[in-house]
Amino acid sequence: MNTGRVTRSWWGWGTVEDAATAAEAGALVERVAALLPGHDLTDHPPPDPGRLPIPAPRVRPPAALAGLCSAGVVDRAGHAHGKAFRDVVRNLHGRLDHVPDLVARPRTERDVIDLLDWCGGDGVAVIPYGGGSSVAGGVEPRFDAPAVSLDLGRLDQVLQVDRVSRAARIQAGVYGPALEDQLRPHGLTLRHFPQSFAFSTLGGWLATRAGGHYATLYTHIDDLTESLRVVTPVGVSESRRLPASGAGPSPDRLFLGSEGILGVITEAWMRLQDRPRWQITASVAFDDHTAAVTATRHIAQAGLYPSNCRLLDTAEAFLNAGTAVTGGLLVLAFESADHPIDAWLDRALEIARDHGGEPLSTRRRDESAGDAAASWRSSFLRMPYQRDVLARRGMVVETFETACTWDAFESFHAAVTHAARQAVQEVCGGGLVTCRFTHVYPDGPAPYYGVYAPGRWGDTVAQWDDIKAAVSEAITANGGTITHHHAVGRDHRRWYDRQRPDVFATALAAAKAALDPAGILNPGVLVPPRLRP
Amino acid sequence: MNTGRVTRSWWGWGTVEDAATAAEAGALVERVAALLPGHDLTDHPPPDPGRLPIPAPRVRPPAALAGLCSAGVVDRAGHAHGKAFRDVVRNLHGRLDHVPDLVARPRTERDVIDLLDWCGGDGVAVIPYGGGSSVAGGVEPRFDAPAVSLDLGRLDQVLQVDRVSRAARIQAGVYGPALEDQLRPHGLTLRHFPQSFAFSTLGGWLATRAGGHYATLYTHIDDLTESLRVVTPVGVSESRRLPASGAGPSPDRLFLGSEGILGVITEAWMRLQDRPRWQITASVAFDDHTAAVTATRHIAQAGLYPSNCRLLDTAEAFLNAGTAVTGGLLVLAFESADHPIDAWLDRALEIARDHGGEPLSTRRRDESAGDAAASWRSSFLRMPYQRDVLARRGMVVETFETACTWDAFESFHAAVTHAARQAVQEVCGGGLVTCRFTHVYPDGPAPYYGVYAPGRWGDTVAQWDDIKAAVSEAITANGGTITHHHAVGRDHRRWYDRQRPDVFATALAAAKAALDPAGILNPGVLVPPRLRP
Repeated sequence: MNTGRVTRSWWGWGTVEDAATAAEAGALVERVAALLPGHDLTDHPPPDPGRLPIPAPRVRPPAALAGLCSAGVVDRAGHAHGKAFRDVVRNLHGRLDHVPDLVARPRTERDVIDLLDWCGGDGVAVIPYGGGSSVAGGVEPRFDAPAVSLDLGRLDQVLQVDRVSRAARIQAGVYGPALEDQLRPHGLTLRHFPQSFAFSTLGGWLATRAGGHYATLYTHIDDLTESLRVVTPVGVSESRRLPASGAGPSPDRLFLGSEGILGVITEAWMRLQDRPRWQITASVAFDDHTAAVTATRHIAQAGLYPSNCRLLDTAEAFLNAGTAVTGGLLVLAFESADHPIDAWLDRALEIARDHGGEPLSTRRRDESAGDAAASWRSSFLRMPYQRDVLARRGMVVETFETACTWDAFESFHAAVTHAARQAVQEVCGGGLVTCRFTHVYPDGPAPYYGVYAPGRWGDTVAQWDDIKAAVSEAITANGGTITHHHAVGRDHRRWYDRQRPDVFATALAAAKAALDPAGILNPGVLVPPRLRP
Repeated sequence: MNTGRVTRSWWGWGTVEDAATAAEAGALVERVAALLPGHDLTDHPPPDPGRLPIPAPRVRPPAALAGLCSAGVVDRAGHAHGKAFRDVVRNLHGRLDHVPDLVARPRTERDVIDLLDWCGGDGVAVIPYGGGSSVAGGVEPRFDAPAVSLDLGRLDQVLQVDRVSRAARIQAGVYGPALEDQLRPHGLTLRHFPQSFAFSTLGGWLATRAGGHYATLYTHIDDLTESLRVVTPVGVSESRRLPASGAGPSPDRLFLGSEGILGVITEAWMRLQDRPRWQITASVAFDDHTAAVTATRHIAQAGLYPSNCRLLDTAEAFLNAGTAVTGGLLVLAFESADHPIDAWLDRALEIARDHGGEPLSTRRRDESAGDAAASWRSSFLRMPYQRDVLARRGMVVETFETACTWDAFESFHAAVTHAARQAVQEVCGGGLVTCRFTHVYPDGPAPYYGVYAPGRWGDTVAQWDDIKAAVSEAITANGGTITHHHAVGRDHRRWYDRQRPDVFATALAAAKAALDPAGILNPGVLVPPRLRP
């Protein structure tokens, strides 16, 4: 990763400096061309954002807040969309139908309060914005009211570290790398590494119930949260720092996953971990996918808690691990800051062998080998940049993810892949659908699907939307969740409305009406919007 | 435990058949008499409940529901209070100021709906009632409106078992033993063993966010919950069976801990575990309490996840483990259904030794040794029966519990024990205050305190209330939670109101108003009551 001065890409993933080089892009395009002879792979570079027909802001902040607000066209364009495939392609086409009128960058919590006061009084929508890496339309002002994108990026400090309890009080606007940089001198880590790590913030993780890189146990941001501080239009909510409590429904769990509709998370006390000293990674090949799933399930139910337990199907194993298997490739890892974990790995491999798995390799790393997460980052974190290379060339390249119980998995997976392949065939005339488990639980896996298909430049957003509708229907009809860790945003709303209990929606809408009487917070997300332009 | 026909005690803990025998009570009283020479230990047996001046019911059910409702005086008396010390003593005095007008026992979920419809229409309060073992005033109609105690005990079936995902769909009214009896043929267990296990229900555990016997990881009912079915006055809420989801705030987490104010939990899909095959228990003596706490913290932070990690202080070690130590006794246990756990215990003992701990004994049990939980049950489960023996003899015998972060523990514990001892001294002229950790987390322990003091017969409720007020003030002022697993009920309300964020209370009250427009559900719990007589 580039560590010098960097510029965020207004249209695509990450930074301008880290985007695919000509050589990386060339090699990738060459591979795709070999797989898809005849597909038009013309490159379509992004337009100049300064020349987009973006209307002037419809609102003006009061003088006291003007210094926090930017009306710059490029800044606003960069805050108009998240970073899903459909966002990136719309940017490439210059299709920015809804752009926030202003980007506000509070320096203090007081600024957040003042900005909410102004917007509440004037009927201006507020979209809390962390790193802007939403892939579910969570930060897009897809409505007609005037909107302020509330970019929390200046609230980026670790304010307090409690080494004894292994916890820290952290401002919500901090990005992943800056957070880890501030924790490292204390020997601590949040150990939360979503793929968006470098371009997402603590507040974004909390508001969307993010899932970390690790496969089991303490990887979801929910479980890492000790307490929250949230600015709402009716006041500031601060929960107590507690390791656990049975005092009524959890206040934090109402705000976790609230996607900016109830308030703006400004700070949290987060549970941290010691930096790992022992790490082992192993990979196991299977001839049969069903046997691989069974092995993975038994490992997930054995109480071993691997840090990685990622089952790749044949296509994923070939594309992302360079390994040819007929049934699946299980990537296992264990780590500990406290003790060698050989006994743990040995037992996991024994289970894998009991189900026909063949261990391919085992690799130990001790502390001197450097950063825990260094090796997977290189390939895993390049994926979205490569997605952009292909998006510019008329490919449909996107992912979707879910979770279901183990008993349902086989038929669920068959129905979802069938729907995906059928849609890809109908819409694109063919393509690839892959699957891996990102997380495994004692009662079920979280399958993550990839779609790679040749599109028609100009139509690829509509093509993806058709495929997405088909797979979302299959997921919803077969009992899965419309999102395991990508959040609901605006893109998943239709299916979310079928998934969540109506009674819960009634309760959530009532809570929102009480905390956000003017209905200014992220209108259209999770509950019906009330703000009228 | 008595396994034949049993009768629930209307006034005290558990069943009439399992109450302390004359010999057990005699031996206990003899020990107390030796410790408290001069204290009046006259036995005060309970009154005949049939002769208590209990007013006639103020409401009459519609004919269609009459068959579900009981107006019997003893039945209503048995449902008037929970089973806290102050409940038992008030029963012994015949002080039943608020008795439910009726006890309703629905046979089906439809019955629950019909009962709520009737009560909503007629302004009758409904108190959802599981096993009635609340120690926080959660089931007591402490208000003037007419009230129905909604006893879910007939909804006691395991409806469906998913062996693959290790989960079951279970009716909420099932008691602990009946639940485990139904799971045993499948080789599964919920592995949730609160002290009230035999006299509490799944629905009660869910509504109060119960903590199990196990010290770490999967022991809280919250984490064992896959989905919930809840009857509210505005409809039935059913969440999807999912191992995890990031689709908005968790619907289940709103109902978990809602203590009957939002709806009646009728069913849940619960995550189960294989029955353990390997078990090891060890105890470690410490000369110094601070060192013992540090060792316990390091074990809690090591990623070993012991099934037991209970640090007893000197008094607890002597009273409940018969062991004389100067600093503390750490009881450690590991168990697994999948693998030997020697490596886990070895490392935990190494950490204990690093902090001056001296291992006293290690005991292995294999599967043939019988029921996993059998041995601790015998002493642990007798405690409430022995409490009743002493309560009848003018002793003040009660517990309180909390949780805090590790960094705060030393000063927190000093402040709380100081407040407790001072109050015990002032109110009772002396007594014993003990402490053990019931649960430990990476970021803090859950201390559980016991109070044993000579009271004045006739005043012991007021005496306890004074002690409780003093310790609750110390807990709240020093950053703890007013309850880690006993729930809020009516007895903790004052301190809960200081603990939870006001903004959250606003949201919760709005949610309740939306789901329970007539305000009939458990009035006075968690949020201000709206029902007027």
